[in-house]
Amino acid sequence: MHPHAHRPIGVFDSGVGGLTVMRALVEALPHEDLLYLGDTARVPYGNRGAETIRRYALNAARLLVNRNIKALVVACNTATAYALPALQDALDIPVFGVVEPVAALAAARSQSGHIALIGTRATVRSHSYTRALMNLRPDAHVHPIACPLLVPLAEEGWTRGPVVEEVLQHYLEPLTRSPIDTMILGCTHYPLLRQAISEVISRIAPHPVELLDSATATATELRETLARLQLATTSTDPGQHRFLLTDLPEGFVETASRFFGQSVAERCEHVDIIDTFASTPG
Amino acid sequence: MHPHAHRPIGVFDSGVGGLTVMRALVEALPHEDLLYLGDTARVPYGNRGAETIRRYALNAARLLVNRNIKALVVACNTATAYALPALQDALDIPVFGVVEPVAALAAARSQSGHIALIGTRATVRSHSYTRALMNLRPDAHVHPIACPLLVPLAEEGWTRGPVVEEVLQHYLEPLTRSPIDTMILGCTHYPLLRQAISEVISRIAPHPVELLDSATATATELRETLARLQLATTSTDPGQHRFLLTDLPEGFVETASRFFGQSVAERCEHVDIIDTFASTPG
Repeated sequence: MHPHAHRPIGVFDSGVGGLTVMRALVEALPHEDLLYLGDTARVPYGNRGAETIRRYALNAARLLVNRNIKALVVACNTATAYALPALQDALDIPVFGVVEPVAALAAARSQSGHIALIGTRATVRSHSYTRALMNLRPDAHVHPIACPLLVPLAEEGWTRGPVVEEVLQHYLEPLTRSPIDTMILGCTHYPLLRQAISEVISRIAPHPVELLDSATATATELRETLARLQLATTSTDPGQHRFLLTDLPEGFVETASRFFGQSVAERCEHVDIIDTFASTPG
Repeated sequence: MHPHAHRPIGVFDSGVGGLTVMRALVEALPHEDLLYLGDTARVPYGNRGAETIRRYALNAARLLVNRNIKALVVACNTATAYALPALQDALDIPVFGVVEPVAALAAARSQSGHIALIGTRATVRSHSYTRALMNLRPDAHVHPIACPLLVPLAEEGWTRGPVVEEVLQHYLEPLTRSPIDTMILGCTHYPLLRQAISEVISRIAPHPVELLDSATATATELRETLARLQLATTSTDPGQHRFLLTDLPEGFVETASRFFGQSVAERCEHVDIIDTFASTPG
């Protein structure tokens, strides 16, 4: 067994979205301790520039490494897209993103090869999913669509009803005449909108469409890699789950608990991140 | 004349919203140089905690003071609500907020004394408008409503049509049976939604309602105070307008130009803000 196997796994996100990934990790790895860091003082990353996203991610990862994590999950599509190689270079622990695992799943499951991707503007602009899909399946046709209003809608709890359906109808309209059979929910917030997305896409797409999200795919890859590196815990007790937040505004615990699927109250801690600049991230 | 009269006026906002205030300043003070700072790397402030908002505002003000401004306009309702006294304490130049001027106007113009206030969650929670209105008019009845989805809708350009109307209908529903005759648009983004707000409120409120926004009221107060302090420029040339941004994501120039009412291209500069903590803001 690796000497660090008893250490916690770090999970980093720009805000609350990564809690849907955290939730899948709890299910897949019930005995692992998990330490979540949400950069709520600087959320959202989705509409920011590439250099700023990289700087924020490096700052956040440094804080978790100082808390002795054994592996890092970047549970944020935007940070994965822009900062994963920089994080893997800078850290000497395994670093997992949320793009590759679900891309591999989509590439394997699509029959037609036409795969839709919905995400934030920054995720779509990064072409990270398109690159990952084309590497795995060069005949794939990727249909990327930026849906910037879905994050605020999910955070405000507008996950059903005419407003979210009208917004989805507007965003997904380009898929009306495309032979897609698979859609990647390329943002950690979107599982909360899964039902509405499923209803709208089944109404407008000409063929049945399977929706895939990153959470489960990422959890599976993490479990396999930890086992292979002998980094999996040998504990049989339930894992401890703690939440570090760079800002704790009123109402946060309610929103976070909705994303995590259980209460996070009494387990949140406010932390400050020192914002070193891109030129001196190390 | 004050020796600093030729210096620029600083205008600070969390992002692009303050550009609606900047626009009113250009009209009211056409010969003044204006230096805008948008903290686009950490926008939005509206859902953050009080201490974080104060820290961000102090950091931003410090940067503008180092650029030799003669006065500061805090063109952000959230920052005005949480940080105005801290900024006035910390700086030795005149500092103007956006709350008092429009509150004074609303207090003077309302017949019924029933005044609605719409704004971000943080602005409403701060009670800054309610306090200002009650000071000026102790018989006032203030009806505050938080509308967190209006900022992302305005930034995405969803300023008309069924989605924004449905969202407004939901938020403004509590006013259906209230005798309001005046509404303060307590967020710098809301002037872009003025037409839709006006249509929805005229449909649901029992009496005609006058909409007031901060931009013009603030510009008028600034002009009068600069004259009184002999800080007004004596130049008769058109003022220079420059824009400092802590992040310059793709698409920013288009959004900013929409808020400012004219192109900001070629006048934007990327700056970094050093995030000193609340304990050492000075």
